[in-house]
Amino acid sequence: MTAALLQEYQRIRHTSAAICAPLARDDYQLQSIVETSPPKWHLGHVTWFFETFLLQAFVKDYQTFHPDYNYLFNSYYQTVGSMQPRGERGLMSRPTVEEVYAYRTAIDERIADLITHADASQWPEIAARITLGLHHEQQHQELLYMDIKHNFWRNPLRPIYLPKPLPEQDAIPLTWETREGGLIDSGFDAASFAYDNERPQHKVWLEAHRLASRLSTNAEYRAFIEDGGYQRADLWLADGWYYIKQHGWQAPLYWEKRDGVWHEFTLHGFAPLNPNAPVAHTSYYEADAFARWAGKRLPLEAELEHKLRELPPQGHFTDSNTFHPQAGSGQHYGSLWEWTASPYTAYPRFQPLEGSMGEYNGKFMCNQWVLRGGACITPPDHIRPTYRNFFYPHDRWQFSGIRLAEDA
Amino acid sequence: MTAALLQEYQRIRHTSAAICAPLARDDYQLQSIVETSPPKWHLGHVTWFFETFLLQAFVKDYQTFHPDYNYLFNSYYQTVGSMQPRGERGLMSRPTVEEVYAYRTAIDERIADLITHADASQWPEIAARITLGLHHEQQHQELLYMDIKHNFWRNPLRPIYLPKPLPEQDAIPLTWETREGGLIDSGFDAASFAYDNERPQHKVWLEAHRLASRLSTNAEYRAFIEDGGYQRADLWLADGWYYIKQHGWQAPLYWEKRDGVWHEFTLHGFAPLNPNAPVAHTSYYEADAFARWAGKRLPLEAELEHKLRELPPQGHFTDSNTFHPQAGSGQHYGSLWEWTASPYTAYPRFQPLEGSMGEYNGKFMCNQWVLRGGACITPPDHIRPTYRNFFYPHDRWQFSGIRLAEDA
Amino acid sequence: MTAALLQEYQRIRHTSAAICAPLARDDYQLQSIVETSPPKWHLGHVTWFFETFLLQAFVKDYQTFHPDYNYLFNSYYQTVGSMQPRGERGLMSRPTVEEVYAYRTAIDERIADLITHADASQWPEIAARITLGLHHEQQHQELLYMDIKHNFWRNPLRPIYLPKPLPEQDAIPLTWETREGGLIDSGFDAASFAYDNERPQHKVWLEAHRLASRLSTNAEYRAFIEDGGYQRADLWLADGWYYIKQHGWQAPLYWEKRDGVWHEFTLHGFAPLNPNAPVAHTSYYEADAFARWAGKRLPLEAELEHKLRELPPQGHFTDSNTFHPQAGSGQHYGSLWEWTASPYTAYPRFQPLEGSMGEYNGKFMCNQWVLRGGACITPPDHIRPTYRNFFYPHDRWQFSGIRLAEDA
Amino acid sequence: MTAALLQEYQRIRHTSAAICAPLARDDYQLQSIVETSPPKWHLGHVTWFFETFLLQAFVKDYQTFHPDYNYLFNSYYQTVGSMQPRGERGLMSRPTVEEVYAYRTAIDERIADLITHADASQWPEIAARITLGLHHEQQHQELLYMDIKHNFWRNPLRPIYLPKPLPEQDAIPLTWETREGGLIDSGFDAASFAYDNERPQHKVWLEAHRLASRLSTNAEYRAFIEDGGYQRADLWLADGWYYIKQHGWQAPLYWEKRDGVWHEFTLHGFAPLNPNAPVAHTSYYEADAFARWAGKRLPLEAELEHKLRELPPQGHFTDSNTFHPQAGSGQHYGSLWEWTASPYTAYPRFQPLEGSMGEYNGKFMCNQWVLRGGACITPPDHIRPTYRNFFYPHDRWQFSGIRLAEDA
Repeated sequence: MTAALLQEYQRIRHTSAAICAPLARDDYQLQSIVETSPPKWHLGHVTWFFETFLLQAFVKDYQTFHPDYNYLFNSYYQTVGSMQPRGERGLMSRPTVEEVYAYRTAIDERIADLITHADASQWPEIAARITLGLHHEQQHQELLYMDIKHNFWRNPLRPIYLPKPLPEQDAIPLTWETREGGLIDSGFDAASFAYDNERPQHKVWLEAHRLASRLSTNAEYRAFIEDGGYQRADLWLADGWYYIKQHGWQAPLYWEKRDGVWHEFTLHGFAPLNPNAPVAHTSYYEADAFARWAGKRLPLEAELEHKLRELPPQGHFTDSNTFHPQAGSGQHYGSLWEWTASPYTAYPRFQPLEGSMGEYNGKFMCNQWVLRGGACITPPDHIRPTYRNFFYPHDRWQFSGIRLAEDA
Repeated sequence: MTAALLQEYQRIRHTSAAICAPLARDDYQLQSIVETSPPKWHLGHVTWFFETFLLQAFVKDYQTFHPDYNYLFNSYYQTVGSMQPRGERGLMSRPTVEEVYAYRTAIDERIADLITHADASQWPEIAARITLGLHHEQQHQELLYMDIKHNFWRNPLRPIYLPKPLPEQDAIPLTWETREGGLIDSGFDAASFAYDNERPQHKVWLEAHRLASRLSTNAEYRAFIEDGGYQRADLWLADGWYYIKQHGWQAPLYWEKRDGVWHEFTLHGFAPLNPNAPVAHTSYYEADAFARWAGKRLPLEAELEHKLRELPPQGHFTDSNTFHPQAGSGQHYGSLWEWTASPYTAYPRFQPLEGSMGEYNGKFMCNQWVLRGGACITPPDHIRPTYRNFFYPHDRWQFSGIRLAEDA
Repeated sequence: MTAALLQEYQRIRHTSAAICAPLARDDYQLQSIVETSPPKWHLGHVTWFFETFLLQAFVKDYQTFHPDYNYLFNSYYQTVGSMQPRGERGLMSRPTVEEVYAYRTAIDERIADLITHADASQWPEIAARITLGLHHEQQHQELLYMDIKHNFWRNPLRPIYLPKPLPEQDAIPLTWETREGGLIDSGFDAASFAYDNERPQHKVWLEAHRLASRLSTNAEYRAFIEDGGYQRADLWLADGWYYIKQHGWQAPLYWEKRDGVWHEFTLHGFAPLNPNAPVAHTSYYEADAFARWAGKRLPLEAELEHKLRELPPQGHFTDSNTFHPQAGSGQHYGSLWEWTASPYTAYPRFQPLEGSMGEYNGKFMCNQWVLRGGACITPPDHIRPTYRNFFYPHDRWQFSGIRLAEDA
Repeated sequence: MTAALLQEYQRIRHTSAAICAPLARDDYQLQSIVETSPPKWHLGHVTWFFETFLLQAFVKDYQTFHPDYNYLFNSYYQTVGSMQPRGERGLMSRPTVEEVYAYRTAIDERIADLITHADASQWPEIAARITLGLHHEQQHQELLYMDIKHNFWRNPLRPIYLPKPLPEQDAIPLTWETREGGLIDSGFDAASFAYDNERPQHKVWLEAHRLASRLSTNAEYRAFIEDGGYQRADLWLADGWYYIKQHGWQAPLYWEKRDGVWHEFTLHGFAPLNPNAPVAHTSYYEADAFARWAGKRLPLEAELEHKLRELPPQGHFTDSNTFHPQAGSGQHYGSLWEWTASPYTAYPRFQPLEGSMGEYNGKFMCNQWVLRGGACITPPDHIRPTYRNFFYPHDRWQFSGIRLAEDA
């Protein structure tokens, strides 16, 4: 079992470096907005997570790798000490990229040592924390894709992460499935890994409703724009209307009209908008307004979870090294995270993890909305029906999509 | 029935003027922060509501009272036209106070005329809208108290709205009531008036839980402060911690230490903090942190609604002309609005009102939290168990209080 | 001499109230931007000046009129104590207008008493301070006009201070006067009153130059606009270009196009722009850009002072109760304050007044520019060639105008 | 003559790269505040200057090196086209450092070619522009030191640019030299190079005055701090007082108290404050307040220029590779730029350069103050008595110092 975990550790750790392989050295330093982080920081932070919550906790007389890294690479764990302000991560020219990789190597060796020689009595807790650390690193792998995309977008030269033609996508008809209501179970209830915020499993009463068979497409969203969607206050939440007017939004993030034709910036370069592909990178405000314009609504997270349990995730996207959403046949999910109409709050009898790791999820249960599913940039084994992703309603640099719903 | 409605109309309209009676002419103009409005504006706005949604809609060839009032007194009805920016209501020295009262008188006459001579076929809709307009005016009566208090607080002279000694308040023991879970009904389901956001009645699954018999007191909250509550990040939501640090909050709004003793600014002047009175004017962030510190949580709105149905409201507070919360015996509610752990969202199958009045409630269902109950400044007949009040998590100029809950 | 000073005191004090006579009670409270103050505050502040620097200083055992007025009505005298933040003067609904007038009456009585019974040994200092206080009050009389105009402009109803048709104005040809350079005297050198910043008289070397015979007109400024003046970066100071783009300026303050015709908001109401009237309410940035566009420059303050010494001021404007600039024949000055190309700094051997009154002028000698002359709203006896008015380069709510110059 | 200019070109171009030699690749990307620029940008911008104003202007059918570099590397030349916003220079991860150096090499070759083969008729203009470009590059060499220092200061690891012990510095007594006033010549009047803002030479009348023999020291400034200098409003300009309170300034930039002892961050690392070294990195506000506290004033720029003409510059500092100010014997200048009491404005009959190069200096003549002399990081041949450096009164990341003056 230690061997398996060690192998898993090495596999996932290696993936982070592989994601950064196409970057120029200069790209590691970029922080385009306060929400994104420099790739270098991501690489250091996930390493710090292992150092802090494993090595510091379980290695006797552990000597910290560098006295300042706890300050530099702590993200938001107030109970672990003070930290570099989030918006100033881009100021860290030091440690250099080489030093960060050296940090990774050093910690990897020590973790391997810890796994191999762990005391049996401590093993369950060690294994649990390493598992958490690996899921944490996978989250940051997705963030790396998100942040690289945004960082590149803000550079006037618009670098391309991985030059590649986007796949053709056929039109897929939208159908509606009526689903009965009733008292259902929601949340995670197995022995395997899930975050604390997915637990405990609990009962939810659902009304009968109907769900779209696939995500809304670029063509459908473009129709909303052309119908004056961004100029009609009656379609918008009050906060959303204020926000889009203040920021001058007229289309989803990464859309750009060139010679009268909508294009989209992707990790594979600019391309004309594919009408059949699912619309990506809308905020909650936009998703909600689009749904209202369509005479529909967004699904509740329990409605969506209930549905996703019936589908396999679309993990093959990542395997194909195409980091752009594709229209599925409606037989999978995982192309884009799906906005729900559910604010991110605690499940009944929710218990955060103990100690500093309790800061992981619970303290964000305010002002954010749940997204379900997964995206084409999500590590395939990081997708499950009970997974609760969450973002502020104005966020849209994440790979978000829209699935419509309505009352039955 | 028209006579009854007319009488009700006149009674409620008169109350607004009565609330403003203690003001100096100069006080009518004040807008201390963007959230508060000048009393003069409130008086005009509620009148504009009747003019716009009744007279404009039902009086043939209606001549508007003043061509600019639709712009000046529209609050947030985007579908009715553009409006004076909210933060600039304090710039309206004109119309003068006299002119606003003249506006009220003129509209009152025309509404009386409309009620008296309404066509039978239109009567149901007219009656419904007047009823809505009266509830709307009652909301603004509460806002008048809230805003006057805040406006006065920001004036260095700290004027007193109504000089009066505060009542003595005895300590009331806190007990816990265990309440069974199960599938309950939530929401309004009668023929009488309720806002659209209280409907439709629907089923909610509740877990067994326990509720405090009374609101938390000043003494209890002071213990939280003295225990370093405002310095311990682990007690706070991430957004809350950021907010209190950014704004330097160390205590509830209106608390002020004088010679080492906590005092409280009230509508009846400054007074030493009464340890037995319910703590008022905390934000959601503070209420949530206090509950976490106490090892409890805030109740869900359905839990609280279920409980309030069993209690009579404490309407006698208003009757006593004491605009300050008092500890009840636990046999009433309505001293302070009670923060819940429920974000303000739509009930299943929620339908906003048609047309512009649909902007009343639905478009605010984002980023806000539900408060239940009512307050000592709420018109007594404006309190009911299904009433959903809502504020941003950082708001605290409303008369908010804290009732603790826990899982059973 | 005491009788004369008392008479002068009463005359000037009375003028302040007269300026406010056309106001509605509600107008006294307005503060449209941080730079303007409520009329009520002006009335209180100038009174506080007399109370603080005369009564407090010279009346034995003086009992302050109100313990909080030193905080409320102190403008910027750090050495006198803390003060209400400038941007929050509009929050002072108390003291009421009545109370402020009562304050004025009370202080006037005590000042009259002080003048009448002043000890001979103290008289010179008392007389000097009262004289300063009266000039100070005259400055605030001009500010009252400026601020009322701006406050009214920000009210959507656009109230009119004094309804009145604006006078006809004929076109006056622009001629150029060549003036020799050399070593001239600049600054005030008489026994009568002048501010400390006008002293001491000192030598300045001037190059030969030419001055326009009159102020630039609305027609001339409109030609600048129509020639794309606000779109040509090469005409602007770097800070100015940034500022006008950030604030979206396209014309002077108070200009508004109605049905394709430029109108101007004045204290006498809106009127079509008079092409022959001097252009008013431009910032330094705009005046400088206009001059560059015209192939000219703004005059140095010494150049202008030298010229103004030869002209009589246009005090008759105020006598006519027309608070709007008129084109003079070139034989007067005082229609608008004239921007100069001179930053506001200390004269050689400048000595600020002693004590708190040293804060009057000297501490503002940074980031501001000198204007010379006087305006149609300036009390006529408050105009003199050596007077140094000063504003930030972006300010334009003062009655500023443009006189062109060039090297000879 | 072409050979000499080519040699000079190569020498100065090489120096820029030499300054960056100690940097890690990661450091090239840093922009700590809007005022500083990434070293990579500096290297590209000065190269763009030669490409734009030489190659584009004089090479027939010139093919631009890269179509986007005009946008990326234009600093503030509005007439040359739009540009990357100043505060977003840190987002340019591309071009990479290698690509920027390749850009330098390519332009250097073409400039060498242009110099070698220039047409005789164009030579004077070409030579003049290359000379301007080299002085421009020297300005950016000084900016490189300034910006690297600030960038490193903002990095929590506080990297050291060049590890090195700071030299000992002895106390040097302060003496005062009385200097006669009268009509003097100010400004540049030779055939050799000077910026347009140093011309034309013109007459200035000076009063008799006295100048300090050396710059004020750290010990003297520390006495100002210990005397409550940052808490006494009467010492400060109004804008300065507001600024230091808003930003919480308590000492010069780069001062830091460690274990009760003042230290200073330098390009050679942290070191205890040397009491005898000249105080560096104060803003104008602080220099002015310090002078007022000392009962003195800052010198006028003409006073200082007149004095500097008598002294040799301290160019040896740069030769020693010590980038930190040293107390001179009073027989040199050039250790720190000396704040003057003169706002930066145009000399009489000032004429900016023609075309885009006219944007170099003239458009900044507002809101800034002149500094004279030169600093230990200034290229020695870039120092002359007539040189007018200028910064905003709140700027202090430049190497500024204080020389006191007083009226005689």
